[in-house]
Amino acid sequence: MADTWLSTLLTSTPEEGYALAIKLARTGVKMTQPDAAVRERLRAGYAENADSLMGASQVIAINFQTVAAANGYWRSL
Amino acid sequence: MADTWLSTLLTSTPEEGYALAIKLARTGVKMTQPDAAVRERLRAGYAENADSLMGASQVIAINFQTVAAANGYWRSL
Amino acid sequence: MADTWLSTLLTSTPEEGYALAIKLARTGVKMTQPDAAVRERLRAGYAENADSLMGASQVIAINFQTVAAANGYWRSL
Amino acid sequence: MADTWLSTLLTSTPEEGYALAIKLARTGVKMTQPDAAVRERLRAGYAENADSLMGASQVIAINFQTVAAANGYWRSL
Amino acid sequence: MADTWLSTLLTSTPEEGYALAIKLARTGVKMTQPDAAVRERLRAGYAENADSLMGASQVIAINFQTVAAANGYWRSL
Amino acid sequence: MADTWLSTLLTSTPEEGYALAIKLARTGVKMTQPDAAVRERLRAGYAENADSLMGASQVIAINFQTVAAANGYWRSL
Repeated sequence: MADTWLSTLLTSTPEEGYALAIKLARTGVKMTQPDAAVRERLRAGYAENADSLMGASQVIAINFQTVAAANGYWRSL
Repeated sequence: MADTWLSTLLTSTPEEGYALAIKLARTGVKMTQPDAAVRERLRAGYAENADSLMGASQVIAINFQTVAAANGYWRSL
Repeated sequence: MADTWLSTLLTSTPEEGYALAIKLARTGVKMTQPDAAVRERLRAGYAENADSLMGASQVIAINFQTVAAANGYWRSL
Repeated sequence: MADTWLSTLLTSTPEEGYALAIKLARTGVKMTQPDAAVRERLRAGYAENADSLMGASQVIAINFQTVAAANGYWRSL
Repeated sequence: MADTWLSTLLTSTPEEGYALAIKLARTGVKMTQPDAAVRERLRAGYAENADSLMGASQVIAINFQTVAAANGYWRSL
Repeated sequence: MADTWLSTLLTSTPEEGYALAIKLARTGVKMTQPDAAVRERLRAGYAENADSLMGASQVIAINFQTVAAANGYWRSL
């Protein structure tokens, strides 16, 4: 990840903000396990476990709080 | 999900805001496991596990914090 | 739940606010498992597990943050 | 719990605020399992499990966020 | 803990604030399990479990949110 | 950790802020398990467990909330 991956928290819409929250959640995983092959292998079991999926949704939700606050909740749209 | 699914965080009432929080929680799951058939299969066990249900409620609660803040807590209703 | 169950986040006292937080936590469970008989069955084991009980307290705490903020922390009481 | 148990979130000191956060965390447990004898029985195992203890600390921390915010973080002390 | 252990949330630096967050996390454990000998015994297994260590870091993080907010994020340093 | 490791929460960019959030998450682990050899040994299993990786991402997300708020969400970039 030599290139910039997070230049701003500002997005045009809530939906783009949610996509950024997903990116933030995934980046936290990548930073802890940089090996893409390992992550891919783990993903198989992960995506078949309901609690794991809800756990992912939770991390996305926490990041979405940050992104939404950064954008003033897109109130002026 | 080619169409817009999240155009705004603003809702008319707290109850609609809670429904949006549920939608956000479920979307986090969908984005991680896009296969609806798999999600449906997992749902059976999930809905029979009390801790899983409370885990879902937790993710909803985190998203509801975001939605409620966006709406100024619907104080002017 | 055809009727309105959440018309406002405002309560007269912190204690009523805490009761509302409990209601929000339980609603998150109900929305995920609408079958009351299943919930009742699951409740037996749940209420006998200390970690589950603390997990419930956590979801209540998260919702109470929302309700307390909505009420300006009842500072003017 | 017929009597008032939470008349205010305001406390004189951060330490009293932390004590209130503990009370809030425990009340969440009580409301889910009202039977004191059951809670006492569960407590034995709970207090011998490090993850359970940290889980309790987490719920206290979440409630302490609420109490601290309510008190303006006791900045004027 | 008869003496005052938490007289203020204000610290001179973020680093001292992080130390206070650790103290808050540990106090939550102590309040739930007051027996130091038991805590010491549990600590052995705890400190050898990666998920437990990350769980501790999470509780510290939640408390650090509170301490950092109390200190205006030390922006004027 | 005799030297200063956290002199400020302010960073130039969101990406640097995210890196700081990772540092905060790891420091919480280090403070609980100061033995680097033990941490290294635990890391092997940790990095191969999808739920553990998402758990790490969660702690990073919580710390990122703090860092992002401290930096006014880098809105003026």
